[in-house]
Amino acid sequence: MNEFEIIDQFLALESKNRKDVLQGVGDDCALLKVPRGQRLAVTMDTLISGVHFLEDCHAADIAHKAIAVNLSDLAAAGAEPAWITLSLSMPEFNQSWLADFHSGLKRMVEHFGIQIIGGDTCRGPLSITIQAHGFVPEQVFCRRNTAKAGELVCVTGNLGDAALGLLVAQNKLECPSKDTMDYLLKKFQTPYPQVAAGIALRSRATAGIDISDGLLADLNHLSHASDVGILLNWERIPLSEQAKSIADKTLLMKSALSGGDDYELCFTVKEDELQATQQALETVGAQCIPIGRMSGKPGIRVMDHGEEIQISDFGFQHFE
Amino acid sequence: MNEFEIIDQFLALESKNRKDVLQGVGDDCALLKVPRGQRLAVTMDTLISGVHFLEDCHAADIAHKAIAVNLSDLAAAGAEPAWITLSLSMPEFNQSWLADFHSGLKRMVEHFGIQIIGGDTCRGPLSITIQAHGFVPEQVFCRRNTAKAGELVCVTGNLGDAALGLLVAQNKLECPSKDTMDYLLKKFQTPYPQVAAGIALRSRATAGIDISDGLLADLNHLSHASDVGILLNWERIPLSEQAKSIADKTLLMKSALSGGDDYELCFTVKEDELQATQQALETVGAQCIPIGRMSGKPGIRVMDHGEEIQISDFGFQHFE
Repeated sequence: MNEFEIIDQFLALESKNRKDVLQGVGDDCALLKVPRGQRLAVTMDTLISGVHFLEDCHAADIAHKAIAVNLSDLAAAGAEPAWITLSLSMPEFNQSWLADFHSGLKRMVEHFGIQIIGGDTCRGPLSITIQAHGFVPEQVFCRRNTAKAGELVCVTGNLGDAALGLLVAQNKLECPSKDTMDYLLKKFQTPYPQVAAGIALRSRATAGIDISDGLLADLNHLSHASDVGILLNWERIPLSEQAKSIADKTLLMKSALSGGDDYELCFTVKEDELQATQQALETVGAQCIPIGRMSGKPGIRVMDHGEEIQISDFGFQHFE
Repeated sequence: MNEFEIIDQFLALESKNRKDVLQGVGDDCALLKVPRGQRLAVTMDTLISGVHFLEDCHAADIAHKAIAVNLSDLAAAGAEPAWITLSLSMPEFNQSWLADFHSGLKRMVEHFGIQIIGGDTCRGPLSITIQAHGFVPEQVFCRRNTAKAGELVCVTGNLGDAALGLLVAQNKLECPSKDTMDYLLKKFQTPYPQVAAGIALRSRATAGIDISDGLLADLNHLSHASDVGILLNWERIPLSEQAKSIADKTLLMKSALSGGDDYELCFTVKEDELQATQQALETVGAQCIPIGRMSGKPGIRVMDHGEEIQISDFGFQHFE
């Protein structure tokens, strides 16, 4: 089986045919039409075996996660996903692995109504690069440099589950029940990108970011880009019952503040917009949980019941 | 040095700032504006160390080639290059390697007036995935499935040089002079994509393809996609003096027909358009050399002074 047959059979997913795709897979280039009045949002992420997923990870889950991490970036910008391209490098052409990978791609593509418009496959160490394209109406792109002092900092869901799921997958953490294990593994292996929440936040959030690199690391970008500090309250950070049942406070803090791989959105809203934002997110099945406030000089401080904690104790590295 | 610093310092090339880029590197997504009346052409290619370039290849040349192979796909579609995204996986963060890589990127980006709008870096085996975006006016996308019987098949320049350059780089072929060696190595290591030729061919070529996978392999796609056969004349295939000075006829045939990595365009024109097409390509420094004709049932036949040759003898694999 050669490259072209692999693309045709496993990657092209020819059934889905969006109207804005004039030429999909099968020529030197894809040819696309961006709808009038829309801007194009573009993001690209690479997942490497042993770095971003465990070597024994199911192919379908790799496909799922590779798409999810990119859609999460689109969600952070308030973009509606449209097209993806995919470059797959694999050590050997294993048909059953590819069929499994294909099933993961197909589920995500159908669920989000997106189309694979191009791809490349080659022999090499297992890695997947996906680029996702989405649309944003003019003027409503959600950036990270537009938060203002006094605004609330919110997240769309529980933090820390993915980092704990990684420990479970690595057999470094025991679970009291199969349900807990399944929940945490799922959060790590097949995260669900907050696409609908991102679109709902378009006209309400004053700034936004996805927190896949860890809450503190990503909020640090937002803080410096916006030139305002952030004061977080540890006791407000949403944690799942499963996480609380399995980890002590130190591990919870480390996972939720620095763990990464939680594909939730973090955003800022004006205080008098909080209730409307909570209602808007509720209608798309997401939460809107205030965890702190924009305040002071750039940088992040975390309070635990009124006392400041040393965030360097929780794996946080200063990037700037 | 972390991922964000690497992107800022070596990949972002912030000096270039196109008007159609509303947000470049530095947020979750890039935000872009496709000019009115234009369609978006998108292509993606991955280069892997040891597969697509030799392990001792200069970083600047890797950057050059990674951009060139993508711009060649845009050229085949008649698209004007605009933006690229880049994912770089490398085993270690080597600053002098990155500076060299950066200089190669910078040269290409400035030469073609394009902008890097996003990127990703991670630790892993050395590989580069680039996605290139270009513009095509409505209605003039050059496809591979639109050639008709009777039309001439042409190429924009010499074939086989890159395959011979690879043999030279591998010390498998001796060169009579340094000039010959430099010429062939350059053709293999830093190919020049036929961007201006692709744009000049927009309204003249009836179909087009880039022949980076080898003339026969790529023309086989064009033939089957267009449902017409192709009859090539070996004696018309353009070969450089350097190639002829170094290779016997069998090696020349193998290199020019199946070698791949020649980033020339192959296209079809109506016979009465040949002269105008030659003039149009001449003004952009490219050639227009007829090498055969669309004729008969799908598939490719190659004639050498009136006698058909067995193309399977020259490394050609049937893909369909």
